[in-house]
Formats: sequence, C-alpha cells, structure tokens
Amino acid sequence: MRDVYVIGIGITSFSRLEYPLVEIAAYPSVMAMKDAGISKIDHLYVANMGAARANRQTGLASALIDHLSLTPAGAETIENGPASGASAIKTGFMAVASGMYETVMVTGAERMREADNLEATDLVASLSHPYAEAIYGATLPGFAGMFTRLYMEKYGVTPRHLAMVAVKNHENAMHNPFAHLHERITLEGILDSADALTNNPYVADPLRFYDLCPVSDGGACLILASAEVAKKLGKPLIRIAGVGQSTDSHCVHDRVDPTDLLSVRRSAEQAFKMAQVKPSDVSVAELHDAFTILEIVESEEVGFFKKGEGHIALEQGLTKLGGKIPINTSGGLKAKGHPVGATGVGQAHEIVTQLRGDAGKRQVADAKIGFTCNFGGFGNNVVSLVFKREE
Amino acid sequence: MRDVYVIGIGITSFSRLEYPLVEIAAYPSVMAMKDAGISKIDHLYVANMGAARANRQTGLASALIDHLSLTPAGAETIENGPASGASAIKTGFMAVASGMYETVMVTGAERMREADNLEATDLVASLSHPYAEAIYGATLPGFAGMFTRLYMEKYGVTPRHLAMVAVKNHENAMHNPFAHLHERITLEGILDSADALTNNPYVADPLRFYDLCPVSDGGACLILASAEVAKKLGKPLIRIAGVGQSTDSHCVHDRVDPTDLLSVRRSAEQAFKMAQVKPSDVSVAELHDAFTILEIVESEEVGFFKKGEGHIALEQGLTKLGGKIPINTSGGLKAKGHPVGATGVGQAHEIVTQLRGDAGKRQVADAKIGFTCNFGGFGNNVVSLVFKREE
Repeated sequence: MRDVYVIGIGITSFSRLEYPLVEIAAYPSVMAMKDAGISKIDHLYVANMGAARANRQTGLASALIDHLSLTPAGAETIENGPASGASAIKTGFMAVASGMYETVMVTGAERMREADNLEATDLVASLSHPYAEAIYGATLPGFAGMFTRLYMEKYGVTPRHLAMVAVKNHENAMHNPFAHLHERITLEGILDSADALTNNPYVADPLRFYDLCPVSDGGACLILASAEVAKKLGKPLIRIAGVGQSTDSHCVHDRVDPTDLLSVRRSAEQAFKMAQVKPSDVSVAELHDAFTILEIVESEEVGFFKKGEGHIALEQGLTKLGGKIPINTSGGLKAKGHPVGATGVGQAHEIVTQLRGDAGKRQVADAKIGFTCNFGGFGNNVVSLVFKREE
Repeated sequence: MRDVYVIGIGITSFSRLEYPLVEIAAYPSVMAMKDAGISKIDHLYVANMGAARANRQTGLASALIDHLSLTPAGAETIENGPASGASAIKTGFMAVASGMYETVMVTGAERMREADNLEATDLVASLSHPYAEAIYGATLPGFAGMFTRLYMEKYGVTPRHLAMVAVKNHENAMHNPFAHLHERITLEGILDSADALTNNPYVADPLRFYDLCPVSDGGACLILASAEVAKKLGKPLIRIAGVGQSTDSHCVHDRVDPTDLLSVRRSAEQAFKMAQVKPSDVSVAELHDAFTILEIVESEEVGFFKKGEGHIALEQGLTKLGGKIPINTSGGLKAKGHPVGATGVGQAHEIVTQLRGDAGKRQVADAKIGFTCNFGGFGNNVVSLVFKREE
C-alpha cells in the first residue's frame, strides 16, 4: 500500500446553518482546496447520514462534485451513522493507497435543522436495530443513560465526573472559532448552584442537559494525496499512519458486558498496530463524546488509561490542555458540535490543525501523533485513525 | 494494484418482497458465501439509496454485518443513487486492490415498497437537483420523456424502436428465475392492437408504460477477493479487469447537448482502457435500461455502435441473445427489475453468471468478457465495469 497524506483541510462553523446542504458541503471543500493549493481532484467521498430523509436529497456526492465544478471526477456518499466521516476518510485512504487515485477529497456534511430536535432524535434513532430497538422507542440518549448508570455502578463514575468532561470541553471550545457552543460552564453552575436543576435538567437519567452534544449543522473537508503529490506542496507532512475499524453486535442488549465497547478497543488496536505506535505515544486525541460518559470510556478502551480508571485520569487533569494526553481540544462533539456525517472529518480536521501547530490558544505543545475515534451506532461500528507528523 | 476476483455471487428475486430490508440484504449475502465456499469476510460494503427515508433505517451496513454474524468485520453503506451498486463494487475493488483486505462482500439492497409508486417516484426524484429540478416537480420519467423526444428528433428513433427494447428484455427475463416480470410481450400487443393504448398507456410522452422499469425490492451480492484467495477455490476465475467512473453536470439542463451522455462515454472508455479490451471484444453486456431509450443510447455511448445507430443495431437483432453483442440477457432493469441500490450488483451478478457459463437458456455462447453500465442520477454519475474470465 502507498503512503497517504492529508494535504488540505477546511471546516464550517458547526452550528445552525441556514444554507442548503450542498452549500454546507461546498464551503469547507473550497477551503480545503485553497489550503492545499490545488484546483483539481481525482475523486470525492461525501460522508452523510440522513440527507435522504432530513433533506429529501440523495445523490449528494453528484450534486457536490458538480457544484464545485470538479466533474468528471467520480463521487460517492459513504454512510456509517455517526462514524460516516471517519469511514469516508478510511475509504479515501484506500483509494489513494491502492494507486487508483492521486488526490481524493473527503467532505462530511449534515443539515439536521430541516426538522426540530424531536425529529432529529428520531432520525438518529434510525441507526439502532429497526425491530428490536427503534420500534420500542429506544433513542440514543436512552441507550447512553442506561449505559452510564451501569458504568457508574461498576466503576464508581459519578455525575461530577460526567460534568467535568462537559466543563473541560466547553472550555476548549472557547478557543475554537468553529465550535457550536461558546459558553463557559462550571461545576458550580451546572451541578451545585440553586438553579442547577433548571439550567441542567435531566434528559435521560443520569444524563443531564450538559451531558449531551447539541444537534448541529456543519461540514468539514480533508484532501488526501499520495506522497508524490504531498511532497511537492512544501507544507507540513501529515500522514494517515493507522486505520482501524471494528463492528460489534447491532443491538446493545446482545453484548456480553454492555459496559465494554469492544468495537472501540479493537479499532484502536488495529490503528495503533498499523501505525506502529502505542497509545502512550499519542500527543492529542479527539474522542466521540456525543455523551460525556463516552469520552471517559473511550479514553480507557483505546488504551490511554486502564479500564475503569478514565474518570480518575480526568479528575487528575490528565486529559486537559497541558495534561498528559489532551482529549477533545476542539471542544469535542459536546461543545464543538455533532453534524453527524461531518463529525469524523471534523475530528481529523482538529488533529491535522494540531499536528501542523496551527491550533492557536488550544495548541498542544510539540504535537506529533494524533488519534481520532469516531463512534457509529451505539458502538456497533467504530473507526479509529492515527495521524503522524513527518519531519 | 493487486488483481481482484469475484469469488461468490447471490441474488434474491427482484419483485415485491415482504421481508424487512436487512433480510433482503442478508439472503443474497448468505447465498454468495455459500457459492464462494467461505465463512468469513474482512469487510462489507452495502449499496443502498433510500433506506433513511423509505425504511427509516440508517446504519444498514452495521445491521447486516451483525445479522450475518460477521462482526467484527468493518462495514459501510455506499450511495450513488441508482449507481450505488456499481459504486460499491468499485469501492470493494479498491479495498482488495490496495492490499487492505483479502475478501470483501458487496451487497446491494433496496426495499422500495414501504411506500406506493407515487412515493417511490418522489424518492427517486430526490436524486435530481434539489432547488433547480426537484422543487419544480421534475421526476425521472419526466427527464426520460424529454430526453427521448430529443433523441427521436435528432436520430430518427421511433416508438417502435423503444418497444423493441421492451419486447427483447421481457423475452430474456422469461429465462431468468430472479426477474421481476415474467410476462411475454409483443410489438402487436403493446403498440398495434386495438387495446394497446389501454395496455400500454402514456406515462411521460413519448414514453409509455412498457418503456419504464418496474419499482422493485431486491438484493444482490458479490464477494470479491485477492488472487491468492480466489485461486485456492478451484472455480472459474472471473476478474474485475476494468473500472471506470465519470460525473456530468448535476442538472440535465446544464449539458451542452442533452442527448450526449458524456458520463456513460467517459466511464466506459476508462473501464475498457484499464481492462485493455475494446468494446467489440465484449461477449455480453448489462446496460442501465431504467427507460427503454437508455439501452439504445448507452449501447452507442459505451462504443458498441456508432452514435445515432443503436436503434438500427437493435432493429437488426444485434443485441438479442445470439446476436453480435447480447444486451441485458437478465431482462435488464426493464424486466428483471430495479431495486435501486441492488441494481448495479445485480448487473454484475448476471455477467458473472454468464462468464461462468451458468446462465441456462439465456447463456451467451463462449462468453469471456462482460461489461456493465450502472447509471446514477439522470446520467450525472456513471460507473462502468469490465469483467474477464481467465483460463
């Protein structure tokens, strides 16, 4: 397989965007081409989950390639629920690695706001098992609530630990101009104050308002290329060094121990093995904190901390900016936002920004190896990626 | 790039299927594994266009991989409108060619029948431009009607030529147990008889009922593998020798000459070039005859006949079984059916069946090279494939 590099990146604000979906996809794509300094690509992969339903649009990849005046390059949409973004990066990686293409654009985009929040929750629930889960009214916050309760009982995680994730990621997002939420929060304000129950009501006990990511619109883009192309551009060389993916039972209730996220563990192991690095070598990581509990558990499953000790590491500040392994410097899904198909591409956008040293006030010093974990379903299909800055 | 072979195939009846979508996808997948004689795969690509809307289901690939007990293999859904099937095959091809995987399952599936025909037409129209076409009520039959009228005026195609495509493909489907329509039709019955207007009413002038494919449910599967795996199985070696893809303007009205299907032409040229064969070397082809006119025009654009002479070749019987280049021996989309995401995989299924010599009464003698053209949008994203039987 050939080496594959990220030569260009672009992103929209993750927020409420009033533009049509194809514009949300086009904006970061143009930005990434400008960043790369190229005017032509060989192929496009679009990551999107719900356009057929939320936007009544199919063939989004064909629409985008034309909108960008990049025909006759081929184009497809890749869907893997909330992990669509990393799945599209992985597909683009293979397209370049195989020798089929020299430059591949990977654009994630989602416009959730055609519908209200209730409809968005229903749309996201469509990734659960249609006749063993969704039909009974199961939702993703519902799964996350049950999962959190189990995790608390088994490992001693408390509501305060969950809130610490939210506070940290909201703080990180203050320094990210593309983040959905620019709102500094405190443990006092969301847990201890007299009006905490009003500010931070229960959504899916034990999860409260600030334990859930917002419903966002947004787009993000990565341009991938072969070494031959990348080395001509004279920019920092960021290589996709490791790619891992694993599925798990589609139904959460089919898992031997529902507190184990085996797909996270296995996908990370694969990615680290391929990249020939250890979890302890990672400078900066973006984990899939659609719910605060997930950041804690993923930080264990990917190998940063021992199983059951993620919340202790969090408490010790190890995952903060300046800590041993800063997690979700972008603000994470929690505060940067979660435009489903764009999320995985947005994670990679942050890592490339960090490895290039362009992250401004949220920069991790001397970042050389970055990691992303993009979580599909309720852990039924997870993609992990390792990025390396080459000197 | 490594060579890639088709080691297993499976298909459902293309018809009205009452099973849930995941079952429609699972059945041909199991069949293909049995055909290949393997019990494990490294990765799955699912081709599907409309499940998010028609079936309120996302993450179909994750559901299928679990349903088949093939976890922890990774899985994604690939969408490229009606060309999703060939796009998924192309993606699987790259995954094996890159060296990433040894065996990849490619399953196309669609369950259109949650809705009635009107809703299905609206769903398919969602692949046109959302605010320059679809919003004005444009539908695919509408585009095809206008396209047909232009083609008739420019090249002398008549309604009788269109009907000849239907009669031929219905005849071929009589010998295909998996075809949606098993109904022998005649020019007399659908054009000349006293009740022809009742039997074969106008749908989108000049297109009549028998010029349009049915709305089908169905699934089809191909298993792809490296030479190392394929050569151990002791079966006829069918190699994916050529892969081509091209986009064109998303809006039909943006094309310089709307009667040119440039994406068909370019994708076929690429596929033939890669396979190092000429159109005249092809033994058997499956073209995307969602509307009868498309078979005629595609037979020209891919290089079987000169531009404007496809209807003459048809008249001369060159595209019949036993003719110079038999087209749509399966019955084509016209009579075999068109379960959108499954269609391109179904085309490949027919070609592999032919190249193996397993096509029974519809067998093309000494078939060595096969070709498929899978048409996305109204020609905005087309994928062509060349298959070779190796001795």
